[in-house]
Amino acid sequence: MPEKPFDNKALKDALAATSQAVERLMDPLLTAPGGPEAKVVEAMRYSFFSGGKRLRPFLVLASSELYGVDRKQALRVAAVVECVHCYSLIHDDLPAMDDDDLRRGKPTVHKAFDEATAILAGDALMTLAFELLADEASHPDPNIRLQLIKSLARASGHHGMVGGQMIDLSASDHDLGEAEIYRLQQMKTGALISFSVEAGAILGHASKKAMSSMQGYARDLGLAFQIADDLLDVEGDATEVGKATNKDASAGKATLVGIMGVERARNQAEILANQAIEHLNQFDDKAALLRAVAHFAIFRRT
Amino acid sequence: MPEKPFDNKALKDALAATSQAVERLMDPLLTAPGGPEAKVVEAMRYSFFSGGKRLRPFLVLASSELYGVDRKQALRVAAVVECVHCYSLIHDDLPAMDDDDLRRGKPTVHKAFDEATAILAGDALMTLAFELLADEASHPDPNIRLQLIKSLARASGHHGMVGGQMIDLSASDHDLGEAEIYRLQQMKTGALISFSVEAGAILGHASKKAMSSMQGYARDLGLAFQIADDLLDVEGDATEVGKATNKDASAGKATLVGIMGVERARNQAEILANQAIEHLNQFDDKAALLRAVAHFAIFRRT
Repeated sequence: MPEKPFDNKALKDALAATSQAVERLMDPLLTAPGGPEAKVVEAMRYSFFSGGKRLRPFLVLASSELYGVDRKQALRVAAVVECVHCYSLIHDDLPAMDDDDLRRGKPTVHKAFDEATAILAGDALMTLAFELLADEASHPDPNIRLQLIKSLARASGHHGMVGGQMIDLSASDHDLGEAEIYRLQQMKTGALISFSVEAGAILGHASKKAMSSMQGYARDLGLAFQIADDLLDVEGDATEVGKATNKDASAGKATLVGIMGVERARNQAEILANQAIEHLNQFDDKAALLRAVAHFAIFRRT
Repeated sequence: MPEKPFDNKALKDALAATSQAVERLMDPLLTAPGGPEAKVVEAMRYSFFSGGKRLRPFLVLASSELYGVDRKQALRVAAVVECVHCYSLIHDDLPAMDDDDLRRGKPTVHKAFDEATAILAGDALMTLAFELLADEASHPDPNIRLQLIKSLARASGHHGMVGGQMIDLSASDHDLGEAEIYRLQQMKTGALISFSVEAGAILGHASKKAMSSMQGYARDLGLAFQIADDLLDVEGDATEVGKATNKDASAGKATLVGIMGVERARNQAEILANQAIEHLNQFDDKAALLRAVAHFAIFRRT
């Protein structure tokens, strides 16, 4: 594998444009009157506007393009997914959870504010996500909005992201095998990535067959991304990565890299990324960015 | 005011029946496969099945009866509201928030499990609430389901419950006036009580005029309940009340009882309860339980 950082101008531009667009959309939606509750809104804004790759919103937009979804609707769902992602980061970083001081190169929310405000900011970001999805600005068809709400809730709750974090926290206590780690990661990070990719298909009334391809792509992409994340934890530089590195090993956490070793994990990520791309065979050039992000998953340095 | 505990057999029976019915409904919905994530589901069950007055589910059912809503649908929404209430109790009890060891006469979730599990159980209960509402079992009309989701999200988020808790936490730092305390309580506890009462009207396609009466009833009832809660904190016995008492004063928290004194606060609660009942004038005997619960609000001892 090449050692130089992955370079794809079109993808970089698309990620930057996604970031700008979701921030522009959320800016007027994240406001507070002047009362003492303004602090929680400040914390929500601090988390939302702190950069990050905006991978999930990008996936919503890129998958929406495959189905000719109205850009405004796609953008709104993209912002919703980022709200849920930010909420999960805020709660995962708490002292009682992963106890992280640094996120996206800045102090975590409970460090910049305090624990109580961080818990509440996470709660409110998640709640806001469902409020935004329920509004007709997300899609004129009520059944589509409900399908998005149900899928997002399933991806985020105890069958998905929350369940995955629970397993991850328990994993220091007992060793997990390879299959169990795959399941953990599919729940903890894969479920929301899958929702992001599926969202475009839901918004665009995709066929069952197309939906199944999108799900296959999302599953493989999510796992490839997670392995790359674990590799960065082992090999990355904290300043570049924007959060503490070498955390997993010192916390005694089970990761695929820990079990497989760096070389096999790298290979595995590459296989998964290629598999992800194969799921997109039915799509033409419209899927170029989704293919590019699968490559990016394994060559990224941050 | 009479010093004997409030006794209304019909209301007591209705509250007990509500409790049984929502527990029966939630039992099969709160399950986990055998994996290590089962711990978070255990914590969710521990919170949900730990008794409590079930005031909010009762209000959903009682308001639904006014509009002839299908009992199964009303019950499902009742259970959803209790999920959100339980989530808020779990997070409010955390060490970083109100730091409570006792709730409904039992150790709080972070005491019975641990902090991380408590945070996740709260997160998952809230997420489950939206998942359940989005399902057609809650109501066949998708627009009704979306209206419920939007109203619940607004009542729970930074404009409602979360915002109220943020003000409450900040209130130790600076004194609040009477109007500010009313606003705090309207957000922190009033918003979810209001949603519970409005839910019946939403499910039953109530007219705008009827909805406005329900909102007036809910607002006054919520405030009366909160004053009664503050009175119990000052005068109640921890064993009877099921949680630590005299917490507000020792935490330096601003309450109406603290500002008004016990006698004026009692009078104010009575005025609010009577006002609440007046909003129900357009309804006949069907509203008897809603009237009874307004009386209960001010005479309760637990």
